[in-house]
Amino acid sequence: MLTINEMECALRNLCAAEHFSFDIGLRVIKVVYTSRIHRHPAIVNEKFSKEGGTRLHCIHFPFTDLDKVCEYIAQKVGNLSGKTVQFTSTHKDSEECVRIIRDTLRVKMERVNDMRCHVKGTNFLLSNILDEVFVYDHHNVDCRYFFQTCLNSPHSSVYPYVLVNVGTGMSIVRVNSESDFEYIGGSHCGGGAFFGLAQLLIGSADMDELLVMAEDGDHRKVDSLVSDIYGMKYEGLGLPPDLIAGSFGKCSNTKFADQVKNDPDYRKDCIRSLLLMISNSIGQVVSLVLNNEKTNRLFFNGFMVRNHPIIMRTLSYAINFWSKGALQAHFLRHEAFNAAIGAMILGKERLENHGEVDIEKVSWREHYAGCSDLGRFVPRRPTDAAFRGEVLELDCADILMRPFPLLSPSVEYDPDTVDLNSDLAAREFWLTIMEESVHKMCSKAIESQHDSPTAAARADVVAKKYLEQLKLLRDKPFAYGTCNVRNLLDLREQIFQEHDFDDPFKLQKKLENDLAVRELPKVVTKLDGMDDVRERLAEATKGLLAGNVFDWGAKEVVKLMEGKEEFTFQKAMDVVPARPWLNDDLDEFLDASMNGGHKSIVVFVDNSGADVVLGVLPFAREFLKLGSKVTIVSNLLPALNDITFGELIQVMKEVTDRDELLKRHTEKGTFKIMHSGQGSPCLDMRRVDSELCKAVLDDKVDLVVIEGMGRALHTNFNAQFMVPSLKAAVIKTRWLADRMGGDIFSVVCKYEKPIVDLM
Amino acid sequence: MLTINEMECALRNLCAAEHFSFDIGLRVIKVVYTSRIHRHPAIVNEKFSKEGGTRLHCIHFPFTDLDKVCEYIAQKVGNLSGKTVQFTSTHKDSEECVRIIRDTLRVKMERVNDMRCHVKGTNFLLSNILDEVFVYDHHNVDCRYFFQTCLNSPHSSVYPYVLVNVGTGMSIVRVNSESDFEYIGGSHCGGGAFFGLAQLLIGSADMDELLVMAEDGDHRKVDSLVSDIYGMKYEGLGLPPDLIAGSFGKCSNTKFADQVKNDPDYRKDCIRSLLLMISNSIGQVVSLVLNNEKTNRLFFNGFMVRNHPIIMRTLSYAINFWSKGALQAHFLRHEAFNAAIGAMILGKERLENHGEVDIEKVSWREHYAGCSDLGRFVPRRPTDAAFRGEVLELDCADILMRPFPLLSPSVEYDPDTVDLNSDLAAREFWLTIMEESVHKMCSKAIESQHDSPTAAARADVVAKKYLEQLKLLRDKPFAYGTCNVRNLLDLREQIFQEHDFDDPFKLQKKLENDLAVRELPKVVTKLDGMDDVRERLAEATKGLLAGNVFDWGAKEVVKLMEGKEEFTFQKAMDVVPARPWLNDDLDEFLDASMNGGHKSIVVFVDNSGADVVLGVLPFAREFLKLGSKVTIVSNLLPALNDITFGELIQVMKEVTDRDELLKRHTEKGTFKIMHSGQGSPCLDMRRVDSELCKAVLDDKVDLVVIEGMGRALHTNFNAQFMVPSLKAAVIKTRWLADRMGGDIFSVVCKYEKPIVDLM
Repeated sequence: MLTINEMECALRNLCAAEHFSFDIGLRVIKVVYTSRIHRHPAIVNEKFSKEGGTRLHCIHFPFTDLDKVCEYIAQKVGNLSGKTVQFTSTHKDSEECVRIIRDTLRVKMERVNDMRCHVKGTNFLLSNILDEVFVYDHHNVDCRYFFQTCLNSPHSSVYPYVLVNVGTGMSIVRVNSESDFEYIGGSHCGGGAFFGLAQLLIGSADMDELLVMAEDGDHRKVDSLVSDIYGMKYEGLGLPPDLIAGSFGKCSNTKFADQVKNDPDYRKDCIRSLLLMISNSIGQVVSLVLNNEKTNRLFFNGFMVRNHPIIMRTLSYAINFWSKGALQAHFLRHEAFNAAIGAMILGKERLENHGEVDIEKVSWREHYAGCSDLGRFVPRRPTDAAFRGEVLELDCADILMRPFPLLSPSVEYDPDTVDLNSDLAAREFWLTIMEESVHKMCSKAIESQHDSPTAAARADVVAKKYLEQLKLLRDKPFAYGTCNVRNLLDLREQIFQEHDFDDPFKLQKKLENDLAVRELPKVVTKLDGMDDVRERLAEATKGLLAGNVFDWGAKEVVKLMEGKEEFTFQKAMDVVPARPWLNDDLDEFLDASMNGGHKSIVVFVDNSGADVVLGVLPFAREFLKLGSKVTIVSNLLPALNDITFGELIQVMKEVTDRDELLKRHTEKGTFKIMHSGQGSPCLDMRRVDSELCKAVLDDKVDLVVIEGMGRALHTNFNAQFMVPSLKAAVIKTRWLADRMGGDIFSVVCKYEKPIVDLM
Repeated sequence: MLTINEMECALRNLCAAEHFSFDIGLRVIKVVYTSRIHRHPAIVNEKFSKEGGTRLHCIHFPFTDLDKVCEYIAQKVGNLSGKTVQFTSTHKDSEECVRIIRDTLRVKMERVNDMRCHVKGTNFLLSNILDEVFVYDHHNVDCRYFFQTCLNSPHSSVYPYVLVNVGTGMSIVRVNSESDFEYIGGSHCGGGAFFGLAQLLIGSADMDELLVMAEDGDHRKVDSLVSDIYGMKYEGLGLPPDLIAGSFGKCSNTKFADQVKNDPDYRKDCIRSLLLMISNSIGQVVSLVLNNEKTNRLFFNGFMVRNHPIIMRTLSYAINFWSKGALQAHFLRHEAFNAAIGAMILGKERLENHGEVDIEKVSWREHYAGCSDLGRFVPRRPTDAAFRGEVLELDCADILMRPFPLLSPSVEYDPDTVDLNSDLAAREFWLTIMEESVHKMCSKAIESQHDSPTAAARADVVAKKYLEQLKLLRDKPFAYGTCNVRNLLDLREQIFQEHDFDDPFKLQKKLENDLAVRELPKVVTKLDGMDDVRERLAEATKGLLAGNVFDWGAKEVVKLMEGKEEFTFQKAMDVVPARPWLNDDLDEFLDASMNGGHKSIVVFVDNSGADVVLGVLPFAREFLKLGSKVTIVSNLLPALNDITFGELIQVMKEVTDRDELLKRHTEKGTFKIMHSGQGSPCLDMRRVDSELCKAVLDDKVDLVVIEGMGRALHTNFNAQFMVPSLKAAVIKTRWLADRMGGDIFSVVCKYEKPIVDLM
């Protein structure tokens, strides 16, 4: 039974809850609701002026706790009278549950078609959760989960895909588009047969117990293998000797059956055989049905499959075996919630909630900090195995995010340069550095709210929580999907925000921006005084790199910046080493720019202060002088000392007051600022604001500049674009310098022209 | 346990046994052997001069009787030392059986690949047994078996076909040609899973018991149906409400499982659910695998399937359901023996038995009289259910038989005009007439062996046996395949021969042939004296019909012939009614013949005596005069008073001594006699001597004449040919006259030109 405390942890923000939907299963119930959340004041934009954002809460809990959960919701949520709650169910006997929900919450209950819910919900998960899809490889002991994303290309779609639902039976649905799907097959052999026969054979239908037994059992004592029939040397049909020729074949003879039954391991062996019989059968039918389908996007879901290693393993094996390697089984991290989410979407469609967010029309991001189990592979509280509730939270981005349209169609885009799931040394380094830096970050956070009496206590909770999560990631790096620098940083950011530290570097950034804006005329005057255009652009590019030395995210720089002497822009210019740099394509970049190769450029910027003001703006001015259009792209949400869109608006106001050239181009529209929609020190090109995507195409951007360690080295270092790109950063950590074969403050100035696609 | 008496009935002619092969199954053992049998002296031909023919004996008996059967064989068969016996087995634990056979029979044992055996044996059955294939229709209470033959066209082949073997597991093999096959799929869900799970669930793996339980059980109490999940009104996936959504689904819940277990019918319901789970799974996998195959020849075999109505029913349903009606399940009457027969064929191939018959190079015919169960659908002795032995005997034709090459490719050939399985009135008539005539036939038989002291006693046994069989056919008309006049007559013939009445009409035929040969000049002289060619041919055609009045097979005629007055040819001419006849195409026939439309004719003849000598020969002479080639085709083996090839040779010798024209044409090769290879009053164009087939093509035959009731009315009345045909007969039974809307002695003179195939 769930305790009040557990319910509090799982069913959050109920006081601001809006709409509810339910998926009533035989064993587990899923509830989904939206709630209004406090929005970061750091976001300043007329578009986002309305108070608060939307969060989607998805929780599943045992069937037996329904009364308790409903009472808890009713108590917290206040009056829902007259509201309609959508539900879906894959069994007829859900009437009792429906009655409980209706009577306790005092709502109208409306049933929605379960298959439509499954499809809608799956579409939602695939379109919004990065690393939602994974392949399971049992034989890879280091890492059994290989994550994939369906969102990594502007040139392809998630459709068509095939959804296999293994519940009581098994059904196969082909999803052709957002709104079109089709039943293409199914089978009567599924979870019903497994639990039903297990119940009749050994008197238990307890999933956990049965799966442990299956894991331990030896089916070869029960089944007839090819070798049992033909011996080891048989080559008649080309079948491997350990292939199961007949499930339970050894039991069909009374004598053998008695032997089997008297075996102390009988129960285990029998359950394993049963599990294999059903998994193999599902794998075979799916492979055969998919012979005629033109997709290898094959997603399994349903309670039989849901993150059960032995089932994922046998299904993966069976799909591979029966399709002769042509197909691969894929699983979904959050498929448990797909029907309930689908019911929510379908319900909202029917209700036509004007003025409210249309779930399908905007993007959502996984709110790791609120999820119980970091992607379902880790029990929320390992000490409390009895609690079966699981939570997924997603935050509405309020905007629609899309893959950056200039990504190359010929190279698969992976934002992250290092995969911490497979790169053990890198993982250890990053987990350690994150652990070490948490207290420094917390002091910054307390400092940013020096007038709040709770700041210190909240910062303590943040540190404790983040350290706990890091510990867990050390053990189970696949908890978020593929572990990488990007999501270690995102998780930290989310935990700070969750504890009302909406922007720990707020004051620091303000201070540095003000300082840099005052410093700007000096830097500009120096450049404007240079006669040679090429030399001027070279100097501005060096300035871009020098600006990037200023970074509160890098330990080595923090040492410099906190040193006794004032750290000026000129000093930063001196820190930038003499050429040739570690990556030095400066000449090629200048050649191309001088020849008018870049008529429209977009610059993804990094830090506040000197970086953006003294590094990026003079660089931008040089391109404006050359006659190019320039768009500066910042983050939307706060992350470390990275400049946010709100801050950039403020900075530009002050700068254009003092800089005629920038003012003129701003008014002319040849210079503008936009945001990526993101809130991370890294840049994930799979999901940028769709308005930016549109602008980039409208402006015919022909140079993508990515600046800073997080955006150009930890991520995007290997990214390929359809237009030339400049990746510019100063290496400010010893580890990365070592990795890249350079020294601290080594310079990366990587200019690349698109790979010509011969296809 | 088998008794000595039972073994005697099943394992016949062991004293003349030659080669043995075994198929060692888990429950049943199949033994196949060849033996030399006494050949009918009626066959006179240099090709068949060697003493005796070959019979193939196929017996299956319970696994537990192996010792006993081996001892019985060893005792009867004499010394087999040094001989090699081929065996095949689909289970590894056959060593003990192999040892028993080896030590008891003192032979070498050689294992042959089971899949090759299955395929070889199935090829053999399909190529030799008419009505081997059937479709099972459970809902047709009158007749559930619909037989098909793979031999009915000279324009198509039995290949490719797909063989599904349901044993411990299930395997799917595509057979492309006599020697080429390929494994295309399989499953671990088969008999092993059924018996294994049944054993574990209810403690029994006894097939008979389980199938009775399955027949009685109600799976809806155990399984989750679509309606259990969605209610009756669900239309989401377009699935019928009574479809099984999840086998055993209702048992997966502990509460329901207890209810199920406490149900007095639990065992039955559970076994039915299990059977359906496995049948459906097999049906689905086979349908899916066959999606990509270009054949609907789908044959099921294996011990799970073997004539078990409930399994044939569920497999048929499943195949139809999963293939959406595109496929149909076919079964084989004798598939139990395919592996053992295959082992015999493969063994003979290896041994290169020079001088012995090559099983695959000649044709074989079902020896109904020696088969225990008339095609496996009828227990041999219903009173003795414990006896599980079953026998199939085939006789070697010593020649290769093939479909008649002039059969039309655009119309499916079915020899039989009336299907006694579906035509209840016809069945009743024919069974009664056969019962009534048996004693008359027996007197003829005793008369034919008046010097044998055992004749009367043997005739009694024949009468008793035949009456028994007719009784059985009244109850189970599908016993031979499709019941029809043809096989009622064949069965009678076989029983006579089995009891050494090789030719009951021998003396009668001799007498009438002699009489007719003496009468011939008178008939010929009359015709030769006519000037008008057309009138002469008309008269000869009328003579052909008059000759056909003479028939010991027709009760009404026997009355005439046994009457006090001598029944002369002239009197027969008078019996032929005035034109117009019942079918009267005489003018068209004469027109075509006069215009030289028939340059090469083949005449299938009927009775000895006046029919062939005074009817057919003068008719043939007219065509010889017109410049046509003529071939007279008789039976090879005796049947009633039909003339055999041996007798025809004798007759022709005597005739050509007296008839110059026939002598000249015989010497010139423009007149010849051949045989059909058959020994029945009916004519089955699916299997005629391949030498006749060759000659018909070489001679460019452009008219097929079929004469007599058996050949032209009971069979072939609807047959369509690629060349013109004349079907000529006098209706000599009241029943047939009534059926055809005529009177007794009505004339059928049906001349048809080929249907133009627009394809």
